[in-house]
Amino acid sequence: MVLVNGLQTDLLDVHDRGLAYGDGVFRTLRISGGKAFCWQRHYQKLHDDCRALGLCCPGHAMLSKELGQIAAAYPQCVLKIIVTRGRGARGYRAVGEMQATRIVMASPVPDYPSSYDEQGVRLRICDLKLSLQPRFAGIKHLNRLENVMARREWDDASIAEGLLLDSEEFVIGGTMTNLFMRKGNELWTPDLTRCGVAGVQRKRVLERAAVSGIRCAERRISVAQLLEADEIFLTNSVIGVWQVREMGDNFWKKGEFTPTVRQWLNEPCD
Amino acid sequence: MVLVNGLQTDLLDVHDRGLAYGDGVFRTLRISGGKAFCWQRHYQKLHDDCRALGLCCPGHAMLSKELGQIAAAYPQCVLKIIVTRGRGARGYRAVGEMQATRIVMASPVPDYPSSYDEQGVRLRICDLKLSLQPRFAGIKHLNRLENVMARREWDDASIAEGLLLDSEEFVIGGTMTNLFMRKGNELWTPDLTRCGVAGVQRKRVLERAAVSGIRCAERRISVAQLLEADEIFLTNSVIGVWQVREMGDNFWKKGEFTPTVRQWLNEPCD
Repeated sequence: MVLVNGLQTDLLDVHDRGLAYGDGVFRTLRISGGKAFCWQRHYQKLHDDCRALGLCCPGHAMLSKELGQIAAAYPQCVLKIIVTRGRGARGYRAVGEMQATRIVMASPVPDYPSSYDEQGVRLRICDLKLSLQPRFAGIKHLNRLENVMARREWDDASIAEGLLLDSEEFVIGGTMTNLFMRKGNELWTPDLTRCGVAGVQRKRVLERAAVSGIRCAERRISVAQLLEADEIFLTNSVIGVWQVREMGDNFWKKGEFTPTVRQWLNEPCD
Repeated sequence: MVLVNGLQTDLLDVHDRGLAYGDGVFRTLRISGGKAFCWQRHYQKLHDDCRALGLCCPGHAMLSKELGQIAAAYPQCVLKIIVTRGRGARGYRAVGEMQATRIVMASPVPDYPSSYDEQGVRLRICDLKLSLQPRFAGIKHLNRLENVMARREWDDASIAEGLLLDSEEFVIGGTMTNLFMRKGNELWTPDLTRCGVAGVQRKRVLERAAVSGIRCAERRISVAQLLEADEIFLTNSVIGVWQVREMGDNFWKKGEFTPTVRQWLNEPCD
């Protein structure tokens, strides 16, 4: 089921700037039992990302209503919201204040092996290096060719995720996940001020860690530092959290901290 | 007039990866007197760009036929061709060999002031710096948020184009054009192996200069070097060539070389 500007249709105007230039942003979240998980947070992030690109963010009430329509029809699904700058004539210039296009759509919940939750996952390091663009860092915009090409690097079903480094070889995260590492009693997560996407669940982990008195630093992390981690885990709004157990020739024991993070992420979230 | 996979429609499947991730490439060319200018070259570039991203490039005969349909209806227009990886389920991974989506559409020829051709243009330096991504450099892909945001920096109709620098402050080109500078008898154009789009007309100028015995170097160019140019000009397949006469506090006299380049670009081109 898809709503484009509130109307049920699978079709979009081919002149939309989302297609022409990737001129837009998106959100991916879980609907469970007919309720959108962390909807207020996702809306806030959508709003912030729209503002960063000068897009006209759809109103909260309108999007909530459309999300409700989808959730009523698909009480267990993955919901994707796309907001683009709208329909436009050819050319990079957007003339005047444009009417944004909003797309709200349901997808099936992916059936990842239950072992990913219970035992953890294998990770590989991607060859593709993320470019540094502070202007768009953290924003979940529609220019995702780097993620697409990185995800094309492997076809081995036993590898759950790819690790993305930036062009200076610092760790940024997975192709579709944020990354954390635990070193003793301290948590580190990559600094995302030069590239990467700062997800809603990443923010929740940072906030929850702070409340729990756990030191958590957003910082540059080298691969060497990552390999010295006591525990590594990946988060996003669809998977929740997966522990990384293996990367190349490196192995990690089942950690005690990932289950705690899973509890945190399973706490009620508006 | 728009053809989507050969059918006349303005609508595209909202699940297309071109929208979701900018997972595709495009071409912009002129139709004059019902004939596509430099079509063989544009097709070759489309083909090369598709290959670089692992996209399935539509066949030459099929695209030529569709282009002919548009040209018959709109003998004077700007033609845009978009090729995406096709329709896909949610997620960065493209499952198996996908059926590419091809979109062929006509737009009106933009009515730039005739002074741009006859007298030249004003240029401004954009604040946004292009990120360095050697993996995609030169390719005209659909991830064009940098161009969009750079073009949003000015609204002064007397400024025709914005100059884009990369994150190391080297000159790359205009937001929609390639750039050349003449220094004595030598031509320089920015090296595009780390970012930027390598256009068809840029290639023609390089080839034509070589044939004419003019030394032409693709190289890193600083702003200081650009300012010492005897003549600067911009090219693309819609505008042809414009001389840059003014940038900030810098002015250039009407040059003798830009008209030569205009002649080159007006030569027959398959």
